[in-house]
This record gives sequence, C-alpha cells and structure tokens, in this order.
Amino acid sequence: MRSLDPAVEVVEFTPTPEQYAWTFGGTAPLARVRPGTALKLWSDDAFCGRLRSVTDLPGTALRMPFVNPQTGPFFVEGAEPGDTLVLHVVDLEPARDWGASALIPFFGGLTSTDRTATLQPPLPERTWIYHLDSARGTVGLDLPLESGHVHLDLPLEPMLGTVGVAPAAGEVRSALVPDVFGGNMDTPELRAGTTVYLRVNVEGALFSLGDGHFRQGEGESCGTAVEGAMNSLVLVDLLKTPGPAWPRLESDTHWTVVGSARPLEDAWRAGQVDAVSWIGELTGLDTLDAYQVLSQVSQVPLANAVDVNYSVATKVPKRLVPAGRPAYDGIHDRLRALVR
Amino acid sequence: MRSLDPAVEVVEFTPTPEQYAWTFGGTAPLARVRPGTALKLWSDDAFCGRLRSVTDLPGTALRMPFVNPQTGPFFVEGAEPGDTLVLHVVDLEPARDWGASALIPFFGGLTSTDRTATLQPPLPERTWIYHLDSARGTVGLDLPLESGHVHLDLPLEPMLGTVGVAPAAGEVRSALVPDVFGGNMDTPELRAGTTVYLRVNVEGALFSLGDGHFRQGEGESCGTAVEGAMNSLVLVDLLKTPGPAWPRLESDTHWTVVGSARPLEDAWRAGQVDAVSWIGELTGLDTLDAYQVLSQVSQVPLANAVDVNYSVATKVPKRLVPAGRPAYDGIHDRLRALVR
Amino acid sequence: MRSLDPAVEVVEFTPTPEQYAWTFGGTAPLARVRPGTALKLWSDDAFCGRLRSVTDLPGTALRMPFVNPQTGPFFVEGAEPGDTLVLHVVDLEPARDWGASALIPFFGGLTSTDRTATLQPPLPERTWIYHLDSARGTVGLDLPLESGHVHLDLPLEPMLGTVGVAPAAGEVRSALVPDVFGGNMDTPELRAGTTVYLRVNVEGALFSLGDGHFRQGEGESCGTAVEGAMNSLVLVDLLKTPGPAWPRLESDTHWTVVGSARPLEDAWRAGQVDAVSWIGELTGLDTLDAYQVLSQVSQVPLANAVDVNYSVATKVPKRLVPAGRPAYDGIHDRLRALVR
Amino acid sequence: MRSLDPAVEVVEFTPTPEQYAWTFGGTAPLARVRPGTALKLWSDDAFCGRLRSVTDLPGTALRMPFVNPQTGPFFVEGAEPGDTLVLHVVDLEPARDWGASALIPFFGGLTSTDRTATLQPPLPERTWIYHLDSARGTVGLDLPLESGHVHLDLPLEPMLGTVGVAPAAGEVRSALVPDVFGGNMDTPELRAGTTVYLRVNVEGALFSLGDGHFRQGEGESCGTAVEGAMNSLVLVDLLKTPGPAWPRLESDTHWTVVGSARPLEDAWRAGQVDAVSWIGELTGLDTLDAYQVLSQVSQVPLANAVDVNYSVATKVPKRLVPAGRPAYDGIHDRLRALVR
Repeated sequence: MRSLDPAVEVVEFTPTPEQYAWTFGGTAPLARVRPGTALKLWSDDAFCGRLRSVTDLPGTALRMPFVNPQTGPFFVEGAEPGDTLVLHVVDLEPARDWGASALIPFFGGLTSTDRTATLQPPLPERTWIYHLDSARGTVGLDLPLESGHVHLDLPLEPMLGTVGVAPAAGEVRSALVPDVFGGNMDTPELRAGTTVYLRVNVEGALFSLGDGHFRQGEGESCGTAVEGAMNSLVLVDLLKTPGPAWPRLESDTHWTVVGSARPLEDAWRAGQVDAVSWIGELTGLDTLDAYQVLSQVSQVPLANAVDVNYSVATKVPKRLVPAGRPAYDGIHDRLRALVR
Repeated sequence: MRSLDPAVEVVEFTPTPEQYAWTFGGTAPLARVRPGTALKLWSDDAFCGRLRSVTDLPGTALRMPFVNPQTGPFFVEGAEPGDTLVLHVVDLEPARDWGASALIPFFGGLTSTDRTATLQPPLPERTWIYHLDSARGTVGLDLPLESGHVHLDLPLEPMLGTVGVAPAAGEVRSALVPDVFGGNMDTPELRAGTTVYLRVNVEGALFSLGDGHFRQGEGESCGTAVEGAMNSLVLVDLLKTPGPAWPRLESDTHWTVVGSARPLEDAWRAGQVDAVSWIGELTGLDTLDAYQVLSQVSQVPLANAVDVNYSVATKVPKRLVPAGRPAYDGIHDRLRALVR
Repeated sequence: MRSLDPAVEVVEFTPTPEQYAWTFGGTAPLARVRPGTALKLWSDDAFCGRLRSVTDLPGTALRMPFVNPQTGPFFVEGAEPGDTLVLHVVDLEPARDWGASALIPFFGGLTSTDRTATLQPPLPERTWIYHLDSARGTVGLDLPLESGHVHLDLPLEPMLGTVGVAPAAGEVRSALVPDVFGGNMDTPELRAGTTVYLRVNVEGALFSLGDGHFRQGEGESCGTAVEGAMNSLVLVDLLKTPGPAWPRLESDTHWTVVGSARPLEDAWRAGQVDAVSWIGELTGLDTLDAYQVLSQVSQVPLANAVDVNYSVATKVPKRLVPAGRPAYDGIHDRLRALVR
Repeated sequence: MRSLDPAVEVVEFTPTPEQYAWTFGGTAPLARVRPGTALKLWSDDAFCGRLRSVTDLPGTALRMPFVNPQTGPFFVEGAEPGDTLVLHVVDLEPARDWGASALIPFFGGLTSTDRTATLQPPLPERTWIYHLDSARGTVGLDLPLESGHVHLDLPLEPMLGTVGVAPAAGEVRSALVPDVFGGNMDTPELRAGTTVYLRVNVEGALFSLGDGHFRQGEGESCGTAVEGAMNSLVLVDLLKTPGPAWPRLESDTHWTVVGSARPLEDAWRAGQVDAVSWIGELTGLDTLDAYQVLSQVSQVPLANAVDVNYSVATKVPKRLVPAGRPAYDGIHDRLRALVR
C-alpha cells in the first residue's frame, strides 16, 4: 500500500459485522476524525463475504436487506452543512484473495426488475468466484464451454462502488442508493489517485465508504462487479467553501461530475449541467461557451444502470481546458503531494 | 363530515407545528391506535399555511426543506412487517376557507428541474389563492386578461396527496417522495370512500397522512395542487395477511394500484404488474389471461409527473371483472358499512 | 350508423388487400377528397383478419411487417403544408362480428422488447377471440379457470387506434408509429363524436385511418386491443389556419392534445405544453395562468405504453375553462350539426 | 490520406447540393458499387456550409429541414435483405480548413426540446467557428473572458456522425435519426480504422454517410460537434451471412455495438443485449456467462443524448475476451490488410 508523508496521522479501522453501516444517515458515527487525518479502512464486500463458492447462490446465501455494508460513518470535526468534504483516495488494496459476482433475481440491467416490471420469470441465479493473482495483477476465473472451458484473466483495477455522506432533509438512504450525497455510484472513476468532493448536509458530514470492486465494467451490467473486501487508504480534509451540487471527482488528468437519477438521461443532464458550472468557475467562460467546450471535450462513461438511481460520469480532460485557477484551491495537488 | 357507527371509537388529533412530521420513518409516533379505531386528523397544507396572498412567493415565504408536513406517525397496535395496513378514508373536509397553489423555481412538470436539468433560467414564481365556497362546493379565483379578468370556479374535490407508512430497510424518506411505502403519490383517486392497503415494514406500521388538496388535475402539472388544510376522518384496520407490493386502493367501483418510479413508464409497469397479480388473485385467471383482461379494461389516470418519483394509477372497474372473491376478505365493504 | 345532413356528399371506400397502406407517407393517394365531403371507410383489423381462432398464433399467422393496415391515403384538395386538416368522426361501427387480441413475442407493455431489452425469454404467445353482441352492445369471451370458466362481457366502445397524415421532411413512417403527424396513437379518446385536428405536412395532407378497436384499456397493456374490422364515417374539412404542434381532439366536452414520445414523461410534457398554448389561445390567459389552470383541471388518461412512441392524452374539460372564443372557429360544432 | 492496395478499385464521388440525400431510404441510388470496391466520398457539413462566421446564426442561416446532408445512397451489388453490409473506414480527412458548431433553439442536451418540453424560453443562439491547423493536428478557437480571451486548441479527431442503410418496412427516416439501420449515431467510435457491420433491409442496401465531425465530445451535449466537410475513404464489402440486430463496429482493439433508443437506458439495454449475443457467438460461452463477462469488461461511452433517439456504445476490449473465432469470418483484418 502506498505510504504517506510521516506527518500525516493514520487511523486504522476495521468494523465488526455488528458495526457495519447499511444506510447513509441514521447511523451513529464510529469515530471522530480531524481534517488532515488519513483513514485506513477495511470494508467487507457487498455480499458480506457470504458468496464463497459457485454453489452459494444469492437467494439462499444473502440476508436481505443486509447487503452492501459500509465502513463508517465518520464524524469530521468542524464540518457544517454546506461545506465541502474532501476525500483523497490514496490507495485501494484487495483484502481477500478472491472476489465474487452474482446474478440476483430481478436485479441488474438486462432483466426486468421491481420497477422495470414485466410478467417474465427471472433469469436463473448464478455465482462466479474470481481468484486474485496479486503478482500478475489480475483476477481470473474459468468458464465452461460446450467442450472444455476458457480461462478469463482480467486486470485488477480496484475501485470503491460506494462513498457518501449523510443526506439532507433528515433522510436516511439505503447504501444501495446513489444520489446527490454520493452513495452507491458504482463508477470505475472512483479509484486510487482520485479526490472526491461532497457537499456536507449535516454536522460532521458523517461519511462512509465500502463496496470495493476488484474491477467493474462501465454500467455494472449484471448488477454486481467483482465484489471484494478492500483496504482503503483515504486522506480526509474539509473546505469551508460551498460544496458541489453533485459529487465531483478530481484526478491528475480529469475533473469529473457524477450525476445519479432515472431515467439515465437525467443522470447525464444533472452531471453535465454541474460540469458546465465547474468549467465556468475554473476558466471564467460564460455559460454558453462553457457548454460549447463541454460539448467537444467531455468523456462520458456510464457508471451504473442498475442501482436505485442510475449514474453517469462526465469527465473533463484537464489538458484540453485552460483553467485560470485550480479546482477547490488546489487541494487535490496538495493531498497528492502527501503520497509517497 | 360524515358520521360513523357509534360503536366506533373516534380519536381526534391536531398537531402543533412542532409535531409536524417531515419524513416517513425516522419520527417517533404521536400516538398508538388500536385496529378498528377511527382517527379524525387535522393536517396543515403543503406550504405550512405560509402562502396566504399572491404576494407570498415560495422563494421567500417557504422555509425549505420544511414543506409537506404530515400528521402522524401513528403506531398501529399489532402491526408487524409483512402485514396489511388498512385505512378507509371516510371523509375529507377543507379546514380553511382558502387554498393556495404556486410555481416554485425548477419544480414542476413543465420546467427543467435539478434532475431534468437544463441551462435555462427558471420560470418566474407565482402564487394563486383559491377561495372556498362551501355552499356551492367550489374553489374559485380571478385571473387577469389583457382587458378585464376571468373568474374560474372549479368543483371542490378533496383528496389526500400523501399517505404512507415507514419504509423498509431502515430508510427515512422525505414526505415529498412516493414509493412502495405510499407517501406523496398525489393521486386524485385518494378521496373519501377509498380504502388504502399498504404493506407494513416496521412494527406498528407508523403511518402518517397529509398534503390535503381541495382539488388537483391528473399529473399535478405545475407541481402544486389547490393545497389546503384538511380534516380527515379515517378508519384504521389491520389484516394479518401479506401486504401488497405497491399501494392498493379500493373504492365501491374500482380496484386500483399506484406505482411510483422514474421514468414514468416504470411507474406504470410496476402498478400494472401488481394489478395483473391482483386480478389473478380475485378471479382465479392465469397470469396471461389476467394480463389480457387488464389490457381491455384498465383505466390509467396519471397521478403526478412532478415528485421525486412519478406516480400512475391503474384502475380496474369492478363491474367489468367477475371476481370470484372479494379483495382482502371484503374489508372495504365492512368498513364502508360503518359510515352513516 | 348515424346519418348526415343530405347536403353532405358521402363517398364510400373499401380497399382491397393490395390497396392497404402500411405507412404514413410514401403511398400514392387512393382518391381525392374535397373539404366538406364525408368518407365511409372500411378498414381491416390490425392483424389483417388472420387471427380467427385461439389456435391462430401471431408467430405463424401474421406476415410481418404487414400489420396494422390503413385505409388511405386520401388527397384533400387545397391542403397545403402548415394548414389544419379537420376530421370529424361521425360514427364507428364494427364490420365483423368478432375481434381478436393477442400476445406477440417481445411486444407489449409488460414484457421486455427489442428496446427495453433483457436476456429473459419472451412470454408465450396467446390469442383471444371476442364475440360481438350488437344487441347488447358488448364483446365477450370465455376464459378458463382451474375448475370451469368465467365469461367476460365488456361494453363495446369502438375507437380508431390510428389516424394520421403524411409526415414532414420526406419521412415515411410505419403505421405502427405515433408522432406529431398522428398515426398509431391508440387512445380511446378517438371515438365517434370527436373532431381531430392535424397539421398538414405535404400537399393534399394524405391522411389515412385504420386500426379499429372494439374496445381498449388505457395503455393497451398487452400491445393489442380488441382488434376488429371497422366501418368509419368521417367528415373531412380543412382550415387555412396554422395546424397544431401535436394532434388535437375536440369533443362536446373536452379539448384534448395527444403527445407521443419516449420516455412516457416526454409524451406527457409535449402534450401538456401544447395544451397550455391551446388554453392560452382560447381564454386569453397568459402562459403561467394557463399552466395553473391546466394543473388543476387536466385529465390525463394514458393512451398507449407499447408503441414505437408512447402516447398520453391531456384532456381539458370545457365546462371548467371559460373560453373566450371557440376552438378552430367553431368548426367542431358546425360539423356536429351535420350529424342526424 | 491513407492509400490502399493497388488492386482495390477506388471510386470517387462528390455530390452536388442537388444530389444531397436528406433521408435514409426514399432516395434513388447515386451509383452502383461492387463489393470489394473503395469509395472516396466528399460530404458537406451538417449545416451545408452555411455557418461560416459567428454572425451566421442557425435560425436565419439554416434552411430547415435541410440539414445533415448525406453522400449517397449507394447500391451494393448482390446485397439482399438480411445480409451483412461491411464498411471499413480507411481514412477521414477534413475537406475544409474550418468547422462550425452552434446552439440551435430547443435543440441539444441541456435545453428543453419539442419532446422534453417545458414552458421556458429557449437558450440564445450562438455559433462557434473552429480553425483547422493540419500541421499540429488541432482545431482551435478563441473564447472571450471578462478581461481578454482564452485560446482553445483541441486535437483533431475526425469521425463520421452518420452512416446507415435504408430502413426496413418501407420506412424513410430523416438523416437526423439513429436507429437499427444506423443513421445519425454520433459516436466518436466511428473513426478511421473501424469496420461497420449493418443488416441489409432492402435490395442493394442503399447506404449513405456524412455528418463529418472534426471532433466531438461523448454525448454531443449542445447538439452539434465541430461540424466539418469531410473526405472519407471507405472499403465496401458484403457478407451473405445474417446481419446484426444493431449496428456493430470492429476496430483492432474492440468489438462495439451501438444501441439507439429513448430513454437512454433503452439505448444501452439494446446494445448490451446484442453485445451479450456477440460475445456468445465469438467465445462459445452461454448467455449468462457472456453476461457476466460483459459486466466486468464493457466500456460504455455515451454517443449522443440529443438526437431523435439517443445512442450508446458498448465496447468489448478484445484483449480481455478470449474469442474462439474471429468476428464475421475475420473480414476486419482482411480489409485492414488492404490499407497501406
């Protein structure tokens, strides 16, 4: 795991199953954190480790609604509604040598669901177990063919499916939900090296994270990624400046906004409008010129089309857009500089 | 107000502003209620009575997010997760002699919103005040023309925009949200004479109601109805049989399911699939024949296309569908018989 | 069949199968019609009469894409792009004593489709044959129960699923499509007594009609109504005033706009915005007041959620909205007066 | 421009404005082409070259509906309904030294439109002119700031917005439409080096192409890319094997399917289901295992969220999926080998 400037305090936390958080909001904080601290957090996989072989099927092995456990929440000292919570993901490392994916009845993108409801029976359940090869940096599995089998070796590309704060207006949302407070965005853009900006809704922000994915395709088509327990090293900071309308991400190469809504075009619209605002703030362009720039440069990978809300990332490549000033006072670079 | 069989205990409740509930779930019960009791409940209007003249504009007069206050929640004795909560709306009577409607920036159906986001400026704010004429049974207002004005007299058709129980999975939802737990469905079908069936998610069910509308068009296009304080007389009952997947309504003439989701077709699909199930239960038809019957008889008035989820009612006319047995053991007729 | 003022010329037309029109646009006119003429048109059912017993299943009996045949097109003398074509539906009478409905694989509202695509197998095919009882005014069929059967008797409520003109911009659209040019709107509002207003896109308008339904539920859930051959008596007229953005209907009681789009909320939005314009034109109210009126009075029955575009009707009750002047110069009443 | 194996016949074609095609289907072929031929085609920009300075605004300069002119159609000898038309894009070169982008009233992704209709006024019109710097491989423009201006230099990344065949069922569609026949997909994936597979619907296939973009962001947010006249060098071939359900693309690195529909999730679902089929065909995996593979490897860049249908690309990286046999008999590699 990457190391940090020795001046940074690192606090480790591994929750017991009784401490798992199943919601954003509505859960008492596990600990208080001072801005500037690093957290090293262990999180269980979205299945709570209950799918360990291909014979562990979701219908019998899972205990609904207890899925997608979060590690947290953490009370950030000084955070007040309207502020900007800053989380820099220093590193993500698999905490087990296997990950699992599964088909869950009436869940996922290419099946009818309780909302996109049809009269057809569900697809069959199925579980896949991936083996981590740390040396080669891959996750692999064997799949049967009519004669023989095929071995699949996919690059390990760890990400966090879920990071968020307590919602506004006294709401408590399932950890399966992505929305303005972050949550289960399931975007592969949430990888090590990324800084997340979230608007604070309650005193202390009360952020949690979890849902580690050893890798995930864009869209998370079948509803589950290569779900795996994860060790996350995260720098926590706070800005007393207004937080963004939607979760914003910054990497060395991109400014990104993640919109979450249904239908999918609304997830896109919400993130795009905020990206236009952000380009305007960074460059000084007026709204229509910022809209034009976005139109010619944005990269728009689907995040998920399977959760309670769908999520889409709008990415603006830094090299293409001449920013007059850095985002959020340059905090991404400052946090990045603490990583060895 | 209609009266009840004298054997029925009637409990009155008028909340103080401090007692208003802003969410489904997350609020301590106001009182415990035994099944078989009637509640006479006063509820404030969705604007908390703050829009009293056309010069009271939402942006300055409202205190967001404190809108759509609910009266409740009530703990129903004996109610356990999975049960069916039964609420028969005996009567709805305006509790003030005026109602209000308003255009709120970026809220409503014919404007961009925070989700259906565009770069256009919002529509202007505007407030309308309707005067109740109880004798004639109308709500009226004057509207300006280029020369002179026109007087609008609309039939008083009281309904409840919101009725629901605490959600499942530990969630707490804003009273602006409609979903499987009921909530802000905003369907004109929720009028006096209607029995509501809701699946219980938590011990005691914890139901609330509010958001009285003196009348509302189907769709609630501008986002607000003729919002008015309301006296509601409601019979509360409980069935220890499995509650429905989506809120179900029964009147003397129709069985109705209200689906809530986005996009609007998903709200429709969810309610329709449950209506197919219900027709099957009532008639003994197989799924495909029930689907066929639904296809030729269903009436589908839009409820709202403006809330956090959109809502659609699927109505099945009783006279067209030969039911082999009554819905929910005939409780609608039994409760109806208690009304004088 | 209702009769007309003897001064009205009535032209009858029954197409041979070779004359069936499968598209709007792209087909040579069957005949020229002078405004003021009445047409008595026979149209085959959407299945071309090929489903005659429950053993005629769509997959084998139909010859795709040859479904939903239209009778037409007709060249209206004097009609130029931008004009308003006026069609008053005098009467609709079943032209056979049976109608058919069917489940077609991956077609309909409560199944996945080629667009709302899933990996689930299709629902089974099934055909239902309804028998017309003219004396009682019903269509009926027997449906099997586990023991015995149930007889369903539904009111005959004839309507036209499809009426439209040639599209703009040189397009040719399948008769299965509803859009701004009308087409396969599948709204039960298109019944006898209704006047249809359509914007003319090409010289002669080139309108067709067909897809008779002996009755249909709102939404046409399974994708097919009680499809039946139909005799339609229609008065044809023309106004040299600008045609509407979307198909408009007028009955003695309602002004109605039918929007067609996906997702369903866009079908609704399109029709609602045009209804606001229409209310403004009729009453002199400004846009926001017209929006307010619409919000409190509109009735919004779903038309279909199964076609290439979904369709929603926005109905404005005349008795609730004080119009300063009649729609389209009062032509609905003038045509109505020709009916005996 | 890249050159081809000298054995390949190259036919050049530059249409006169009178020869521009405005639709897919409904237009007589410009020429007949034998499979194995290369076409070198000039196409005008989507604005027909009418926006040449920032003072040329769409509302006055364009002549609706005459936008997005296509070069074609071409009759491919031997092509019959059901076959696979193969188009390998050898090279795309700007045919002018400037490109244009514009805001058109009620058109684009971050404004209300005629379907996503609201009562808000349109955004202002604006035109941007980009200058091509061939040596540096960029397109650039100056944008005003409050004080001074900023210069934007964006990489030239030529692509074709539109390529398609005549639709099925006798339809004729505007060149603004993307659907199963291809058309205005507006995906940056349609660049040089890409092979396009389209199902043939009519004898001769009748394909056209146009809508050159010097570059485009994913989503084409404002509705227009850097629109420019283009020279396209395309190898035309034909396979007498069944054509795909949706347009498929193949590059040296990816198999890609482009789905087009509304809402956006349906565009995604349609392309994803076809990608599952394709993975199954290439690897021999069963449907659910192919679904699992897709879920972990697919890259899903938005194509456009502004056209008549929205388009989404599902990309499957070849290096991650062990294909047992090449796509379409390896024709991509064979055509690629003809390029010098």
